[in-house]
Amino acid sequence: MPVQVQSRRGFASDNNAGIHPEILEAIVRANSGHVRAYGDDDYTRAAIAKFEEHFGSGIDVFFTFNGTGANVLGLQALNRPYHAVLCSDYAHIYTDECGAPEKHTGCKLIPLPHHDGKITADQVRHAYHGIGDQHHVQLRVISITQSTEMGTVYQPGEIRALADFAHQHDMFLHLDGARIANAAVSLGQSLREATRDLGVDVLTFGGTKNGMMGGEAVVFFRPGLSEDFLFLRKQGMQLNSKMRFVAVQFEALLTNDLWRRSAEHANRMARLLEQELRKSPQVRIVWPVEANGVFAQIPRAAIAKIMERYFYYSWIEDECIVRWMCSFDTTEEDVREFAAFVAQIVN
Amino acid sequence: MPVQVQSRRGFASDNNAGIHPEILEAIVRANSGHVRAYGDDDYTRAAIAKFEEHFGSGIDVFFTFNGTGANVLGLQALNRPYHAVLCSDYAHIYTDECGAPEKHTGCKLIPLPHHDGKITADQVRHAYHGIGDQHHVQLRVISITQSTEMGTVYQPGEIRALADFAHQHDMFLHLDGARIANAAVSLGQSLREATRDLGVDVLTFGGTKNGMMGGEAVVFFRPGLSEDFLFLRKQGMQLNSKMRFVAVQFEALLTNDLWRRSAEHANRMARLLEQELRKSPQVRIVWPVEANGVFAQIPRAAIAKIMERYFYYSWIEDECIVRWMCSFDTTEEDVREFAAFVAQIVN
Amino acid sequence: MPVQVQSRRGFASDNNAGIHPEILEAIVRANSGHVRAYGDDDYTRAAIAKFEEHFGSGIDVFFTFNGTGANVLGLQALNRPYHAVLCSDYAHIYTDECGAPEKHTGCKLIPLPHHDGKITADQVRHAYHGIGDQHHVQLRVISITQSTEMGTVYQPGEIRALADFAHQHDMFLHLDGARIANAAVSLGQSLREATRDLGVDVLTFGGTKNGMMGGEAVVFFRPGLSEDFLFLRKQGMQLNSKMRFVAVQFEALLTNDLWRRSAEHANRMARLLEQELRKSPQVRIVWPVEANGVFAQIPRAAIAKIMERYFYYSWIEDECIVRWMCSFDTTEEDVREFAAFVAQIVN
Amino acid sequence: MPVQVQSRRGFASDNNAGIHPEILEAIVRANSGHVRAYGDDDYTRAAIAKFEEHFGSGIDVFFTFNGTGANVLGLQALNRPYHAVLCSDYAHIYTDECGAPEKHTGCKLIPLPHHDGKITADQVRHAYHGIGDQHHVQLRVISITQSTEMGTVYQPGEIRALADFAHQHDMFLHLDGARIANAAVSLGQSLREATRDLGVDVLTFGGTKNGMMGGEAVVFFRPGLSEDFLFLRKQGMQLNSKMRFVAVQFEALLTNDLWRRSAEHANRMARLLEQELRKSPQVRIVWPVEANGVFAQIPRAAIAKIMERYFYYSWIEDECIVRWMCSFDTTEEDVREFAAFVAQIVN
Repeated sequence: MPVQVQSRRGFASDNNAGIHPEILEAIVRANSGHVRAYGDDDYTRAAIAKFEEHFGSGIDVFFTFNGTGANVLGLQALNRPYHAVLCSDYAHIYTDECGAPEKHTGCKLIPLPHHDGKITADQVRHAYHGIGDQHHVQLRVISITQSTEMGTVYQPGEIRALADFAHQHDMFLHLDGARIANAAVSLGQSLREATRDLGVDVLTFGGTKNGMMGGEAVVFFRPGLSEDFLFLRKQGMQLNSKMRFVAVQFEALLTNDLWRRSAEHANRMARLLEQELRKSPQVRIVWPVEANGVFAQIPRAAIAKIMERYFYYSWIEDECIVRWMCSFDTTEEDVREFAAFVAQIVN
Repeated sequence: MPVQVQSRRGFASDNNAGIHPEILEAIVRANSGHVRAYGDDDYTRAAIAKFEEHFGSGIDVFFTFNGTGANVLGLQALNRPYHAVLCSDYAHIYTDECGAPEKHTGCKLIPLPHHDGKITADQVRHAYHGIGDQHHVQLRVISITQSTEMGTVYQPGEIRALADFAHQHDMFLHLDGARIANAAVSLGQSLREATRDLGVDVLTFGGTKNGMMGGEAVVFFRPGLSEDFLFLRKQGMQLNSKMRFVAVQFEALLTNDLWRRSAEHANRMARLLEQELRKSPQVRIVWPVEANGVFAQIPRAAIAKIMERYFYYSWIEDECIVRWMCSFDTTEEDVREFAAFVAQIVN
Repeated sequence: MPVQVQSRRGFASDNNAGIHPEILEAIVRANSGHVRAYGDDDYTRAAIAKFEEHFGSGIDVFFTFNGTGANVLGLQALNRPYHAVLCSDYAHIYTDECGAPEKHTGCKLIPLPHHDGKITADQVRHAYHGIGDQHHVQLRVISITQSTEMGTVYQPGEIRALADFAHQHDMFLHLDGARIANAAVSLGQSLREATRDLGVDVLTFGGTKNGMMGGEAVVFFRPGLSEDFLFLRKQGMQLNSKMRFVAVQFEALLTNDLWRRSAEHANRMARLLEQELRKSPQVRIVWPVEANGVFAQIPRAAIAKIMERYFYYSWIEDECIVRWMCSFDTTEEDVREFAAFVAQIVN
Repeated sequence: MPVQVQSRRGFASDNNAGIHPEILEAIVRANSGHVRAYGDDDYTRAAIAKFEEHFGSGIDVFFTFNGTGANVLGLQALNRPYHAVLCSDYAHIYTDECGAPEKHTGCKLIPLPHHDGKITADQVRHAYHGIGDQHHVQLRVISITQSTEMGTVYQPGEIRALADFAHQHDMFLHLDGARIANAAVSLGQSLREATRDLGVDVLTFGGTKNGMMGGEAVVFFRPGLSEDFLFLRKQGMQLNSKMRFVAVQFEALLTNDLWRRSAEHANRMARLLEQELRKSPQVRIVWPVEANGVFAQIPRAAIAKIMERYFYYSWIEDECIVRWMCSFDTTEEDVREFAAFVAQIVN
């Protein structure tokens, strides 16, 4: 008899949610007969065509298993091992991938102190040195996360300034878009406007946190960068044999604006959560709620008590800052119930 | 409107098949509510309990995305970079993973010429040298594939002899079990009898080729080998956030002997295919059909002509040896229709 | 006809100096007949015995070609790729080895902001987190440089505090001793007192900057850490075939306190340089002169002008901080002439 | 008092010899004053000019510490990690560098069975497959050793055929020239004729085994291959700070044909040794003596007995094949005395 799992919706992460029904339906529908493995199939070609609908032609798209894989391989495509990647000191690639970027690419990641989760072109300019000096790693990539690890969203001009600096200095701009959908809807942009049109060179396009069962895409916007990516992906252990099942998830996500509907909903739930939490004076919202996450400073004693009912992550432990995320399936009732519980604990 | 894909069942690979209905059903059933990410959930614990039912207690089980990941990380757990892995010259890890084992572990893979897809303890003994010599890589692991890349199956005594040599020389035995189910049913063994009881130290337990949508498991049979495997897996980019969906696939595979039913069927179809093909004197079966694959030498001109209707892989191009695989969903009709088509072409 | 090189003694680096005569003499003396390669020779055994005279028995000593090799391999001996190394943001391993530590070990280096070139146990305590969390690199090594990249010297208690923290938290203390001789004489300590007795686990013992032609040593003070170091060194491309010629250099350096005489002289010259430079009010000495380097903030316009006659390195370009190093062969006359020249330029 | 080492000249290896007097003299001469570190000095420029005298202009030359470093970095300059290197199964890079090439470049080395120490263009043609297939490593480099690990010498046409195959298939030819001098004199060629003129793309030019104290050079004959080699070398831990002392050794080696005189002498001594050994019917010379090594099959019982007086390496243990090398300082008396001793033991 199959296991019975209790599975209350919570606010720990958008990857604690399951599969959006439209995506699961696509998986079920694709489960017929045999198709060639490793992406040489019509499902994959159709999914890539969907990416071209959204991002325009002249792009190269590759699917990976997860975000770590997409980020690391996207960086590897741009780098040789003596290169360096500039990123925020709270970037997921810097803090939450167990050193996978360094291990796999050989490169150094250089952390810049974040401001509301972001880094600026000015910081990059200040960090730009040692060029041509054999003792120094050579700066090659600026990597940003959009929406950020602090739930904020880069403004278009901020990204454009980073892209411009990169391109003026023979560097590239990589965007970790695990939650790019949340950022695009926050800014009222299309996916293309939020990425390619701002000068992003390589995008990690996130699916898993926006209702997919699993899968991310690496999207190259500049010709010539991905010529050997098939080999990097295979050697990087990220080649899916039954590729059709990740392809159809992406196709569903990019069909009828499911990506937007899901992200818009999650963002709206986060704003509602913020609004409800602000009613408790003991809860301080620490960064602007611009996507689907709320970061709050709460009394230390409350952290564990809330966690007895709702699992979630402490974000900056020293400062009692916690993270609460909304997802495509969060309901208004979930939010109100959770906020009420928090209020009860902190008061 | 979703893509319409023509998807005739063929004989290219067992990974060209889709998802077994019992497994897909398990995925659908698990798609409810939120659960913790990264394997800290009851679905994953239940799946691991299923492994313990089959393999006994005192094992450590970790899920990965794919076979490359499972093999490479399983080897990394046993090795430091100056170690070496002995394997067949046709081992999947040697020829078909784009150098992932070397890239990721830093180790050298030393190929031994296969006999019917297998290597022997005698070959290993002959290759055993340079121990303690700082100029040489140090032999650390024997890696075999069961069933083999040539569709044959190691006899229990053959595996036991390799395990004994390994353990007498401070080495380990790794088994790439992408098709271990096919081997176990071929030998009339339980999963445990086919692996742990023969002295295997680390097993890559295959799911994808036996009806899963995607997922493999690394199973450690010896205490102390996997103490830091959580870190190896994360840094190795093989940690699934929505782990429940791979866990329930394994649980289904290991429930009511689905693994056995599927493998038995695939093996039976392969024997039927062999029998049908043997009717054509121009088709020479080159290795014993002991699992779910048939390897045949056919006239060079026929290779491309058959491929016009059925995609498949040329296995040893110089010698006109091709590979045809059966899977859980291959039907007798599929086999007869294909064999008739082959007969028509080669005659 | 051999090239005629003009070779004024300067203050760019102690590695701009040549070979101390006593060391060169040892090389010449060892150049007789054949001896076994790769360190299996009496010269090497004699040199190791010299290390045991200075550091005590129960140590393991290995020679490498250069400091990068010694540091990187010393760290690799302590680490697996998912580990992390805490160091100062101006540590040589962090800024001046072109990413060799990350490339070779796979580990992340985590920079802590330096204070006068040093890091503190308090900083390490604050950085200590994520232990046991599979998403985070696992802290494993604290690495410090003595004397520091800023010409200062850790006090014994400061090192002891770092060692204690390390050992209480299942970590190791690595000391990059490219200039450990300068530090030991500055503190009036023996080599052992300056390292092993303070809790250092692994030492990079520098020879090149203290009058050797080339060569560094990795010294392990704790049993069990170096069991496979022969393989790490060979695979790390740091095994010298004609080992006798590096061994005799170390033997000379450790004989009749040459290491101490040379370092004492260089330190004294640095103090003299400081004293002379302080006569110019436009020259601000920025860090205490405790070893053989003087770091000065000078008018921006002077930087290039001084460099026309004396090559040297700008240390922190934005702040016009430059570095001037003394070596075993620096003379008082060199110092006075240089200081006079600087004075003339800055005034 | 310095160690007294007994140092009979033997036949274990040309790297058991010391420093040629002309080279040691150059070191002593260069030991004056300060020069810039890391190769930015006139000694280094003069040495590179010497290389251009011998090899022609339009080359790029970099010095490394040892042969492992030169080989591995030379290969890395040509490869990305999913590439493969074809070499003989007895190539030094394959068997004697403890896996350094795989560890550092990430690439697979594919061994081809040697014939008298050589591989042929036909073998390479046979091994050429999997091109463009993402599952396979991509062939990128053919690496040969000249003179070979078996003491034989490739004929010019054999190298030219390998170079032609390489260049017709978008591959490169790397030559491990640890003993290129011995090969060139054996063939009566200049260094350029023996390498660049035959189509070699990258050369490891050996110094250590031809009378240098230590040092090898990587020489690039094709523009564009070495653009980032400075970074590869530094990150590869092969950058010498006191570069002048390796540079002047090369300058001496390339002055007044010292390279040729030394190699000619060593080769002549090997021929003499062969001639003397052939007088004992129990000694079978197994490969043509074309450079400075003699490989002999001797009675098993003799192997250890000879080694009691003369240390040397067993080359193929199973077959009782041993290796005896001559060097620049081997005398006729050494040879006769050794041959007489061998004769006495085997008879």
